[in-house]
Amino acid sequence: MEKVREIVREGRRVGKEDPRRVVHAFKVGLALALVSSFYYYQPLYDNFGVNAMWAVMTVVVVFEFSVGATLGKGINRAVATLVAGGLGIGAHHLASLSGPTVEPILLAIFVFVQAALSTFVRFFPRVKARYDYGILIFILTFSLISVSGFREDEILDLAHKRLSTVIMGGVSCVLISIFVCPVWAGQDLHSLLASNSDTLSHFLQEFGDEYFEATEDVDMKEVEKRRRNLERYKSVLNSKSNEEALANFAKWELRHGQFRFRHPWTHYLSLAALLRQCAYRIDALNSYINSDFQVPVDIKKKLEEPLRRMCSESGKSIKEVSIALKKMTKSSSSDIHVLNSQSACKALSTLLKSGILNDVEPLQMISLLTTVSLLIDVVDLTEKISESFNELASAARFENKIKPTVSFNKSDSVSIARGKPVKSQDNDDHVVTILSDVGTSNNVDQSRGESSVESCHHVAIKIDGDDDSIHEKHEDAEIHVHTSCGDQANASEVLNSNNK
Amino acid sequence: MEKVREIVREGRRVGKEDPRRVVHAFKVGLALALVSSFYYYQPLYDNFGVNAMWAVMTVVVVFEFSVGATLGKGINRAVATLVAGGLGIGAHHLASLSGPTVEPILLAIFVFVQAALSTFVRFFPRVKARYDYGILIFILTFSLISVSGFREDEILDLAHKRLSTVIMGGVSCVLISIFVCPVWAGQDLHSLLASNSDTLSHFLQEFGDEYFEATEDVDMKEVEKRRRNLERYKSVLNSKSNEEALANFAKWELRHGQFRFRHPWTHYLSLAALLRQCAYRIDALNSYINSDFQVPVDIKKKLEEPLRRMCSESGKSIKEVSIALKKMTKSSSSDIHVLNSQSACKALSTLLKSGILNDVEPLQMISLLTTVSLLIDVVDLTEKISESFNELASAARFENKIKPTVSFNKSDSVSIARGKPVKSQDNDDHVVTILSDVGTSNNVDQSRGESSVESCHHVAIKIDGDDDSIHEKHEDAEIHVHTSCGDQANASEVLNSNNK
Repeated sequence: MEKVREIVREGRRVGKEDPRRVVHAFKVGLALALVSSFYYYQPLYDNFGVNAMWAVMTVVVVFEFSVGATLGKGINRAVATLVAGGLGIGAHHLASLSGPTVEPILLAIFVFVQAALSTFVRFFPRVKARYDYGILIFILTFSLISVSGFREDEILDLAHKRLSTVIMGGVSCVLISIFVCPVWAGQDLHSLLASNSDTLSHFLQEFGDEYFEATEDVDMKEVEKRRRNLERYKSVLNSKSNEEALANFAKWELRHGQFRFRHPWTHYLSLAALLRQCAYRIDALNSYINSDFQVPVDIKKKLEEPLRRMCSESGKSIKEVSIALKKMTKSSSSDIHVLNSQSACKALSTLLKSGILNDVEPLQMISLLTTVSLLIDVVDLTEKISESFNELASAARFENKIKPTVSFNKSDSVSIARGKPVKSQDNDDHVVTILSDVGTSNNVDQSRGESSVESCHHVAIKIDGDDDSIHEKHEDAEIHVHTSCGDQANASEVLNSNNK
Repeated sequence: MEKVREIVREGRRVGKEDPRRVVHAFKVGLALALVSSFYYYQPLYDNFGVNAMWAVMTVVVVFEFSVGATLGKGINRAVATLVAGGLGIGAHHLASLSGPTVEPILLAIFVFVQAALSTFVRFFPRVKARYDYGILIFILTFSLISVSGFREDEILDLAHKRLSTVIMGGVSCVLISIFVCPVWAGQDLHSLLASNSDTLSHFLQEFGDEYFEATEDVDMKEVEKRRRNLERYKSVLNSKSNEEALANFAKWELRHGQFRFRHPWTHYLSLAALLRQCAYRIDALNSYINSDFQVPVDIKKKLEEPLRRMCSESGKSIKEVSIALKKMTKSSSSDIHVLNSQSACKALSTLLKSGILNDVEPLQMISLLTTVSLLIDVVDLTEKISESFNELASAARFENKIKPTVSFNKSDSVSIARGKPVKSQDNDDHVVTILSDVGTSNNVDQSRGESSVESCHHVAIKIDGDDDSIHEKHEDAEIHVHTSCGDQANASEVLNSNNK
């Protein structure tokens, strides 16, 4: 009884984790019930007879969770059945010419050679990744067809029926998986990367507070919850095999949503690899938040300003990447944050050169300087992540995020909002980006909540992406609908509707 | 033509990487050729007819690279076919009672419910790991048997024949995979761990030289080769999924070699996880060997002695683990090296407290102190690795490495070798280990090569495993058949044979 209850609980957990699993189970049931009508429906049964079982078998084996996996297996199976069927008939014909005593020996040799060769080919990494199942079916069909003790005309009939039932089974799988609540592996990979980068940026944005604030928090539950929230990044550490499988399936998928047939999935994998490297650094950073080997707060404080800026700016940059990925637009402000984090790096090095730590014991510095070094790594990786995303965005032909040039007349209750992006190119080393937005916060605040509106202003000028980059930042602007929230367009729509 | 040549080259590479792959391909060919005799051999064909194809199908699908994987799939398939066959006949019987109009509807419902439920169960992590294939076969067999439009006595006959051919196919796979050049997943996992720890220890033992020696080496090729040799550790970083799969297969395997049926494979996974963590640290260390941000040699030199000792001693400890794993014995000298590395840690901290780095710029210290911090991590991990290995060794009932107490009379050309281990317990916190070995090197040298004989002597006393451990090391001993080479017994055998 306890056992049953436990299974039900586990089932509920599994279903809650991804409700599409329940839907998938129903889809498989539907496909099987449909295909088994080959047996009940007399005209079909008259035609195919026992061969109807190949349709059932195909559905059971081919129907996978995502469209890509199903398509991949279905195509593998159909092509392999076709080719192996042809070769099998050929082998059978060849053997039958040789007379009844030699025939079985010849057939056994054919089967042996074919099976040994194909099995060996399955070890080729490129074959294993995409065509493993196809080769398996090839061995199976060839052996079955070539050795089956039938006469040749029977075999042709057999092969024809088998192929058509396999194709019918495969087609019903593919149709159901595409048209009933489809699960696209490509979409999954895309969302996985967006959420992974979001998780990392969350950690980096919170790291400053966690590291520099006194740990004597009163509410242990609150601390526990925040800590758990921070440690979500751990799922990124082991995401490699999952990402590779998804990219593999995604390559089979047709155009869906905003994804083309030849969407640059390999670019996703390189971005994913960089995010994972960043996650490793974050894992190390995390161990310093609450290590036994605490650095005295007054020493930490000396480096607080640049360190906080380094992690918050690289966090913002990765956040930008996450948002742009989610919206499938190009991102320019990600680069700006990278520049900001690099300038914080420089400020840090100036600070260190000034001898601010000269009277600190080296032993106490170990942990602090390791944190510094990890954050420098993170800033480097952030730049690479931003670059890798830009490559991905242009390979995937993401839209340019065109900022709206809106300007309306002031009425008594409604204020002005102006956005004037002066932007030359997006994916070039020579980028001149001047964002200058004017608006009033009140109305926007009320309609959209505070989060998207911040009172800050960026003027970032980057001339050629080398180290001599000039970088300026003004904090004196009026009110700025902050671009890092990624949807000025939305904001001005809201303003527009307020205007009406 | 170029394409064909490339395929041949790839084939040669794949075969060279693991020659067992070629053997496996031949084994599959053999099994298939054998099973297809069901068709040629008249008495068998008379008995099973078309059902013989289930034997072929079973062989193609079940025969895997390792014994464990084959056994797992075979057992899954046999049990699932049996259970699903029984239930399928039951469902068919139930439906046939309800009259010809309701029957197909009822059958379709059975198939739907069964498929949906089973498909959902496949998402349970524990089921997915071990019984995924079984459930697949369950869905398949149930559907095929329950909907097949035969009369019931025919069905019983069908189910019986299908089950027997499946079992025959499965048994031939299992027999061939066990008796023809078997590939044991357990043995593979065992060797993988031994070689992984060996790789890590190699890096740690070489790290000192790489880090402290001037990088202006003349022979670039030599440097390149050494560097490539060092970076073998990279394979450890991504070994997780491979290790988990092997452990999973190993659980199905029978007693083989020195592995019992219920060998503690989960212990292997925890040891593997620690080794991987260590590899991450090593990856970080590696980036500091040749980073752009070089620390001046004179500053490095100040910390050279304890740092070198830390990494070489932890390297030796992991080497001990690797050797003991390979020989399946318990290891005591691994703990000694852990103690040595910890004492080096303390020496380092004393050195840092003494203010040796006080006049060094903090900026230059970042890289140095990060290296220090990583090495401290490595020393911590080494202790955990040693502990985890000890747990594994006692769970797997590895032999105690009993040091032989040999003593012979001195003759003119032959010298004395004496080994007196005074050792109380092996897996306890309270360990008192005194190794004291006396012998002459000359004869041993000639017969066994220099590597196993070193002129050093350990007296390590550890009283209760806490931080106050007393630790002494004498370098003044006579000649010592070094225990880290793990086979004093062999050495004394050699001496023995020299005596005769």
